[in-house]
Amino acid sequence: MAKELKELTSRSENYAQWYQDLVIKADLAENSAVRGCMVIKPYGYAIWEKMQRILDTMFKETGHQNAYFPLLIPKSFLSREAAHVEGFAKECAVVTHYRLKNDPEGRGVVVDPAAKLEEELVIRPTSETIIWHTYRNWIQSYRDLPILINQWANVMRWEMRTRLFLRTAEFLWQEGHTAHATREEAEAETMLIHDIYANFVEKYMALPVIKGVKTESERFAGALETYSIEAMMQDGKALQSGTSHFLGQNFGKAFDVTFIDKNGNTDYAWATSWGVSTRMVGALIMGHSDDNGLVLPPALAPIQVVIIPIYRSEEQLAQISAKVAGMMQRLKDLGVTVKYDDADNRKPGWKFAEYELKGIPVRLAMGGRDLENDTVEVMRRDTLEKETRPCEGIEEYVKNLLDEIQQNIYQKAYENRQNRMITVETYDAFKEKIEEGYFIMAHWDGTMETEDRIKTETKATIRCIPLEGDKTPGKCMVTGKPSAQRVLFARAY
Amino acid sequence: MAKELKELTSRSENYAQWYQDLVIKADLAENSAVRGCMVIKPYGYAIWEKMQRILDTMFKETGHQNAYFPLLIPKSFLSREAAHVEGFAKECAVVTHYRLKNDPEGRGVVVDPAAKLEEELVIRPTSETIIWHTYRNWIQSYRDLPILINQWANVMRWEMRTRLFLRTAEFLWQEGHTAHATREEAEAETMLIHDIYANFVEKYMALPVIKGVKTESERFAGALETYSIEAMMQDGKALQSGTSHFLGQNFGKAFDVTFIDKNGNTDYAWATSWGVSTRMVGALIMGHSDDNGLVLPPALAPIQVVIIPIYRSEEQLAQISAKVAGMMQRLKDLGVTVKYDDADNRKPGWKFAEYELKGIPVRLAMGGRDLENDTVEVMRRDTLEKETRPCEGIEEYVKNLLDEIQQNIYQKAYENRQNRMITVETYDAFKEKIEEGYFIMAHWDGTMETEDRIKTETKATIRCIPLEGDKTPGKCMVTGKPSAQRVLFARAY
Repeated sequence: MAKELKELTSRSENYAQWYQDLVIKADLAENSAVRGCMVIKPYGYAIWEKMQRILDTMFKETGHQNAYFPLLIPKSFLSREAAHVEGFAKECAVVTHYRLKNDPEGRGVVVDPAAKLEEELVIRPTSETIIWHTYRNWIQSYRDLPILINQWANVMRWEMRTRLFLRTAEFLWQEGHTAHATREEAEAETMLIHDIYANFVEKYMALPVIKGVKTESERFAGALETYSIEAMMQDGKALQSGTSHFLGQNFGKAFDVTFIDKNGNTDYAWATSWGVSTRMVGALIMGHSDDNGLVLPPALAPIQVVIIPIYRSEEQLAQISAKVAGMMQRLKDLGVTVKYDDADNRKPGWKFAEYELKGIPVRLAMGGRDLENDTVEVMRRDTLEKETRPCEGIEEYVKNLLDEIQQNIYQKAYENRQNRMITVETYDAFKEKIEEGYFIMAHWDGTMETEDRIKTETKATIRCIPLEGDKTPGKCMVTGKPSAQRVLFARAY
Repeated sequence: MAKELKELTSRSENYAQWYQDLVIKADLAENSAVRGCMVIKPYGYAIWEKMQRILDTMFKETGHQNAYFPLLIPKSFLSREAAHVEGFAKECAVVTHYRLKNDPEGRGVVVDPAAKLEEELVIRPTSETIIWHTYRNWIQSYRDLPILINQWANVMRWEMRTRLFLRTAEFLWQEGHTAHATREEAEAETMLIHDIYANFVEKYMALPVIKGVKTESERFAGALETYSIEAMMQDGKALQSGTSHFLGQNFGKAFDVTFIDKNGNTDYAWATSWGVSTRMVGALIMGHSDDNGLVLPPALAPIQVVIIPIYRSEEQLAQISAKVAGMMQRLKDLGVTVKYDDADNRKPGWKFAEYELKGIPVRLAMGGRDLENDTVEVMRRDTLEKETRPCEGIEEYVKNLLDEIQQNIYQKAYENRQNRMITVETYDAFKEKIEEGYFIMAHWDGTMETEDRIKTETKATIRCIPLEGDKTPGKCMVTGKPSAQRVLFARAY
């Protein structure tokens, strides 16, 4: 793909435009011919694949198995659970026919009216309904429980306003759907996954999160409780990066999934569901990148190290390449993903800019003087610092540097969040700070009315009721009524 | 899932029913609430995951990258390539609306007539059209080529008669779509993938294949050449297990994808596409399994070894478990996937039958006498042979046994095929042998008329024109006209 050196809009100038530019220019994704659906390009997909591998291992280590359920859901299934249909039926892609035919007037193909479905099918916006319909036949006794299943799949929600990765009509995700014999077990599963998500985002994505439970109005449609992790983007907005739902017996009842318990009594099965999506790639980009391009945490970078030769002759290139070959092998042995870019149709300066844009954590460059001195230039993407190091022991140095970069990126995100998170006592202070892009801890009276009013007046929502931290009661900043604890407010993606 | 000891229909009694029983009883897949769409259960999905990992590595080692393109395709795209639309438009799921609403008469939800799409969207039956529409913007110069992209995705073809794994309306697959600057490069890519598929099926699936090119009438809709690998099932029928298509410039022209070549001339890009699907799980089952259940080649078995304790007391179980712990660790260190089944709600005999049904390649059983003698009973699934071995060195023994089983399963499939593959000279002999379930090498005059006649009269199709083996010309068995070489006929799944 032909490319020119690319100018990004700066974050301070226009954060939204910066994000859009970056996704396109770093070759992560682009809009497709189908409204709201994106093409995930190889580089963007490679990041998603790394996320998938790590999460998949975490799920399997905790006893989950993958399976696959149909893409299409009979329309009537959506209506079975009252809250669920309200949340999901309104923005569905609906399949009504199963055949096209040649246009009798000769203009391509048209829908064949004879091939109308008796019952329309909906492209899954989420799979609780079809899965619980299936579980009905799988569950008779407590011995059949728990069922701990995850699915990697595409889903579709007909969003009106879309943004690459952050909100698209079709997106890729994993959705876990578990069935349990007791409430306690289902609640424990919900929390286990909540912890896995938090751990993943902090450790691999290098983004600190606030763990908490959603208010009733922000809950998943059909859940009794929704737990989320909230990460702060560089503009102070929140991005919800993984939700785990305790569904109680709602779907057990809606799909008549009963079992005989240890005492011979019949009960409805208890459910959880949980998911993370390609949205997380958006969070990763927004959380760390800068005006020069992507900044990727080494743990998720498809390429961790790039090596660029700077040469004046074929002979010099051959010498550099010979030296680099051993270096590459030793780096690979240390588990480092490394690329050697000796393409001769681009100048080193172009390559430097390109790999900065792509967020490769470490760049090594070797030129004539380095050959003489047995050195290599090391550039780290997070701070853009350069230094010249001896070749001797460079592999261990780079390996340690990658760990240091991972830590440093997290630390930077953590400090950004600490600097933009405050406690306020009054609604006036709240309004002022929310405009400036803060995470705000404030007292709220627990009513949907107050929550709605704040949302309407400030565009801020309650991101979660934090599980950890200060639990002191107080008075609602809006109504003065009693508040059980401070909750987290922010504007959100 | 509650289970009773399960009786399978035998292969000789009813091969089709045996297959159906086996898929259900071994917990691989089941039919769903949506016509023609299956639920792939965890055990079946685990086999598919193993296939995916291996193929994905093979693709990446040959320079391919994964990406993701939209599920939905604008209807008009299908009409762009004349042959393609004939092949795929006729059995598509068509999305016509994007919203449901509450039924004014109170019966659940109905399609909202106000939310009708301007142009209908089709669920991808294959993605050439949307991908080549996208490539148009990615390709300007020969420097942008080749593009070597693969996608793991679900696709949908509204098949009227479906069978679990073998033919389903929705299925999972990978589809590679590459773009090249020259005809030669595209042809080389087509052959590279054809070889990868053959290698995968022979080495990992333990099924010998015949590599060849399809006749015009069996070609992919829009291809200049389709290469396939044909494997024989135990009933003598063929199962096409991977196709690689040379598309020429058909899609380049249909989607106006041009580039400037090295000499400054403008040309259309050359294309290939290639795919394998969950159908391969069906081939794996049909190719090797027996009247006791699945027989899985160790290279694709989700669990390679199961260990079952046989005990009379808790104390004895503890002793066995202690011994098994070390064994498990050493097996894992050798890269063997092992499961210890000490569940106390099932008797050993039940477990034996269950793991036979599931096709676990090696079963180890340890009882009281084994404890005394420091031995273990080893059963291999392919031959059902049992022997008692000393615990000392058992891990290496099992590791080698797994290799031997992989070889033996291949050998058995190879011998079955050799016994059922013949050369015939006359159409009468052909008709007789095709009834008996043979792969037949026969001369054909190269015309579609003769091919059609044979198909109509015998239900046999030309599976491929083999690339290897005897190339002697002859005379068509039906018309007596000249034939360039013998071609492979069979009835097929």
